[in-house]
Amino acid sequence: MTEYKIALVGFGGVNRALAQLIAERNARWKTELGFTLKIVGVTDLFLGSLIGREGLDAGVLARLPAVKGAFAQLPGGSAEAQNAAVIKDSGADIIAEATFTNPVDGEPATSFCRWALENGQHVVTTNKGPIALHGPELKALALRHDVGFEYEGAVMSGTPVIRLAKQTLAGSELSGFEGILNGTSNYVLTRMEGGLGFAEAVREAQVLGYAEADPTADVEGHDVRLKVVILANELLGAKLTVSDVSCNGISALDLADIEQARADGARWKLIGAATRHADGSVSASVEPRLLGNDHPLAGISGATNAVSFNSELLGAVTVSGPGAGRMETAFALLSDIIAIHRRVAHH
Amino acid sequence: MTEYKIALVGFGGVNRALAQLIAERNARWKTELGFTLKIVGVTDLFLGSLIGREGLDAGVLARLPAVKGAFAQLPGGSAEAQNAAVIKDSGADIIAEATFTNPVDGEPATSFCRWALENGQHVVTTNKGPIALHGPELKALALRHDVGFEYEGAVMSGTPVIRLAKQTLAGSELSGFEGILNGTSNYVLTRMEGGLGFAEAVREAQVLGYAEADPTADVEGHDVRLKVVILANELLGAKLTVSDVSCNGISALDLADIEQARADGARWKLIGAATRHADGSVSASVEPRLLGNDHPLAGISGATNAVSFNSELLGAVTVSGPGAGRMETAFALLSDIIAIHRRVAHH
Repeated sequence: MTEYKIALVGFGGVNRALAQLIAERNARWKTELGFTLKIVGVTDLFLGSLIGREGLDAGVLARLPAVKGAFAQLPGGSAEAQNAAVIKDSGADIIAEATFTNPVDGEPATSFCRWALENGQHVVTTNKGPIALHGPELKALALRHDVGFEYEGAVMSGTPVIRLAKQTLAGSELSGFEGILNGTSNYVLTRMEGGLGFAEAVREAQVLGYAEADPTADVEGHDVRLKVVILANELLGAKLTVSDVSCNGISALDLADIEQARADGARWKLIGAATRHADGSVSASVEPRLLGNDHPLAGISGATNAVSFNSELLGAVTVSGPGAGRMETAFALLSDIIAIHRRVAHH
Repeated sequence: MTEYKIALVGFGGVNRALAQLIAERNARWKTELGFTLKIVGVTDLFLGSLIGREGLDAGVLARLPAVKGAFAQLPGGSAEAQNAAVIKDSGADIIAEATFTNPVDGEPATSFCRWALENGQHVVTTNKGPIALHGPELKALALRHDVGFEYEGAVMSGTPVIRLAKQTLAGSELSGFEGILNGTSNYVLTRMEGGLGFAEAVREAQVLGYAEADPTADVEGHDVRLKVVILANELLGAKLTVSDVSCNGISALDLADIEQARADGARWKLIGAATRHADGSVSASVEPRLLGNDHPLAGISGATNAVSFNSELLGAVTVSGPGAGRMETAFALLSDIIAIHRRVAHH
């Protein structure tokens, strides 16, 4: 029986949901997945930090009040986020990184990943920033230290995309993909089809918790662009950076455009896409596209996300599912840990 | 570098497409997949058989005229299908089984699989019959002889379903699935939405090559029922046999039903489904279901297939893609061989 010691970096909804899963399901995982998890450290900018090398009570952690410095309430805890200590000195085998993404430099998440990998620890993360902005460096680090580095949740939360393509579509000769990779903008477009104006639909998405107070990253395609970089590099062997991806959002679409599309048997969708050309180069874009109703992504409504993979041997294969949510994203971390367990077991 | 010797059992469209892929792509596979394939035997009820322990020319095989006894034209070939010799005496490491499915007893495909597994050979198959009717016996045989037994193509041709669920959704706590698992019946329903009567739509599907001369197995749900047995046993740990699955097809639906559904914002689909209940039991059915337009399977039109997996941690995750086609199904065999290669490499 394998037990992995895990440290949780960032303790917002996602890692809190992971703690809840550990509290409820560790015994079941022992038989069903072949391993258990023991939390040995937690750190969060807002809540502080706590190290417990003999194992922390996952249930207590999951129920921790979301108040500033709350970890100071627990024995041995601190109101300060002692990130370096939790990553390097907790004895963790695996670091679960789920902090805020800074889309410009990927910090501080990238440093957290770097510290752990350099320290010979496996890293699982749901964070777009480190992969989209520093993917090659971090992957090389993981290779050099012979540890796992998994980030399925960075694209569509728990809905499998990267692992689906790499494990189940290997050999199909992927030539490109098109994706609906942002739930907020897809929700806004869906509501505009219901007659709401753009601003009104954005406001509704904010009330429902889909959109941030500043919805720019969602509706202008910046969030999708990071995901396109990740998928293009991962699945098509590209070496794109963010500036290689042309980016236009949905804010220029109005109700007349939406209505005209309907009249033409089509729908506007914000599509992140990449294509490998005959010379091996890869071009990528984020833009509103008019999809005929028979396109595999045309029927993806509301906050659902989807990717349609195009391959020479299969044509279009499409996966759709949640693109956000605390439990859904915590599952992405679990699926990454399962991948690391398989790796360790085969080593 | 690994080279697998492979024998092709059944040489209709699927294994012929596999031979074509081998002829065109072996060199590429060497670097991209880490192995090459060498065909050492081929057998087919109609075409005869041929053994070549030093390797047969895949290109010559792929171009063989589809005339009775054609293998007799090639040096060393025979107009007779010497199945046992090709499986047992060709020196093959892997048997690619792609013969006709007899939906009642799964023969002769089941015997071909059994011979190979007992002989310590890996088996890849696209055949529903052996898995749906004799799955537990054949899986036990594979386990006993420590060989791989893979059958991704038995459900949705090359579109990943079994491997997707087992590899990328492990730990998500699957509770059930709903699928559109027969392209012919879905095509017929889609055309009825276009105003064609049932008989007329079936005739059109026959002309296009989707439907057999006798369309019963497709439109009455018998084909779907076999796939439901496979998926329920594989993904939900059920122990269902064909008679455990209630089965109703689409032949009772008429244009008035289709039109009424449209008026209600819904669509009729032939759904194969299974659900695991709280007591661990699994119930399964094949039946026309009225799906609201926001259901993940409502937008699956024409001959496309899809499965929506329901899990506790993710809700619905849906995969759609081709459900048939010679190259698409040959890719399923390739994906099975890749799985066997990973198994061998890790052993």
